[in-house]
Amino acid sequence: MKLATVSRGAGTSTAAVLVDDLWRRLPAADLGAWLLAEQPAEPGEPLPGWGPVNPLPRPGKVICCGLNYADHIAETGRDLPSHPTLFAKHADTLLGPAEEIVAPKDVALDWEAELAVVVGRPIRGADRDEAAAAIAGYTVANDISVRDWQRRTVQWFQGKAWDRTTPIGPVVVTPDDLDPLAGVAIRCRVNGELVQRANTRTLVFDCATLLAYISTFTALRPGDLVLTGTPGGIGAAMDPPRFLADGDLVETEIDGIGVLRNRVRLLP
Amino acid sequence: MKLATVSRGAGTSTAAVLVDDLWRRLPAADLGAWLLAEQPAEPGEPLPGWGPVNPLPRPGKVICCGLNYADHIAETGRDLPSHPTLFAKHADTLLGPAEEIVAPKDVALDWEAELAVVVGRPIRGADRDEAAAAIAGYTVANDISVRDWQRRTVQWFQGKAWDRTTPIGPVVVTPDDLDPLAGVAIRCRVNGELVQRANTRTLVFDCATLLAYISTFTALRPGDLVLTGTPGGIGAAMDPPRFLADGDLVETEIDGIGVLRNRVRLLP
Repeated sequence: MKLATVSRGAGTSTAAVLVDDLWRRLPAADLGAWLLAEQPAEPGEPLPGWGPVNPLPRPGKVICCGLNYADHIAETGRDLPSHPTLFAKHADTLLGPAEEIVAPKDVALDWEAELAVVVGRPIRGADRDEAAAAIAGYTVANDISVRDWQRRTVQWFQGKAWDRTTPIGPVVVTPDDLDPLAGVAIRCRVNGELVQRANTRTLVFDCATLLAYISTFTALRPGDLVLTGTPGGIGAAMDPPRFLADGDLVETEIDGIGVLRNRVRLLP
Repeated sequence: MKLATVSRGAGTSTAAVLVDDLWRRLPAADLGAWLLAEQPAEPGEPLPGWGPVNPLPRPGKVICCGLNYADHIAETGRDLPSHPTLFAKHADTLLGPAEEIVAPKDVALDWEAELAVVVGRPIRGADRDEAAAAIAGYTVANDISVRDWQRRTVQWFQGKAWDRTTPIGPVVVTPDDLDPLAGVAIRCRVNGELVQRANTRTLVFDCATLLAYISTFTALRPGDLVLTGTPGGIGAAMDPPRFLADGDLVETEIDGIGVLRNRVRLLP
């Protein structure tokens, strides 16, 4: 099943479910609100001409895992981790699957294609099975990072939490239709050139393990979002390093979910 | 002026302002909601028998600065920083000025007395003067940290974001009545023993500088909270290291604001 927040223009939005290639209304203003209400997915009126926007405009928590693909860990010069490396960002960082990524022109903007997990049920102190059962679905994310700010200090937050730099979407696919543990391909292209390519089966910490680990110390609620980390191929690790330029098109794709297409706009 | 969220028992709460030693109602369920409404502080009905609870139950952002007092930086073995070291936690970590800090008994729980700044006006891309003018007031915080989890990876979040471990309050003092730049004393006592003692005038990055820096990359809104870092004297830096035990009383005090008194309860 594919879920989304859809819109047909400014000021309109609703949660929706895809039935026979047509979005049909679910009774909430966005998917996050619909997940929080924990209702059954009963398709309402058809919505021809409506399309996916940011599925989760206001999650209470956005928690990210870094260093979770072996090849990316190698390119940062680190050993395989014994525990997930976690950091938080805020809802303001999120934007839709086709929106512009806007940043100042003097920062080192880099890409990080990621699988993201959407929480569907409240959990705290969950074991791995309970955490797996609490997954509402999966979406695509790009944890666009301001590398020079990220590296100013030992904590990455200030390079990760720029408003409206983390595209997510276009849809949320429920676990019955997607199994990241069995493996799905994830890719990032910049202006059509493939820069990241991996398979989610090579994640060091899988989705349910991450949710269970996080739930040890904090409650996760419907609509919360967990980004699972990026594979190798970031611009900062290239020789010479490569960063995003004004006008670049970043495409982030996961098979079975869809593609984010975000144009970069750097302001003077 | 002293502002607070006050309560006279479960299920009751209101924003309030202190007038002649008596809390008087402000028209919002808590201080965060009142700040968001940006109304003048017109004291309503007197509230005898009501007392301060967590002043900000649901801030949109809680951003923390680490490594911001020279003596604490020295005890961690680092050089003075060129930029603030920032990380985020969530509203769920906060609790009131007299509530129990609850954690499992097998973790290394440590204290971090801090001055916290409460945002009063929306800012983004603010300079230092605009940031100073956006400060609603100051409160006391203790960024209680789970050191063993904090040190599992290079990112501190998982040692900082345990639900209900960061007491704040008891009141928020407006800038006309408190000037951390001129200097106020901050202390932490454990079971009456003084473990941290410093003056806010020795902060490397002062409150307005921190707010302006953060506003470069993310919007700050009324009710958002910025913790400014802890001085020297944490338990982990003692020889041998000392961590909080079940039943310990942590008192966190800033002159001109007040005292947090939180009992530690470690669960089997």
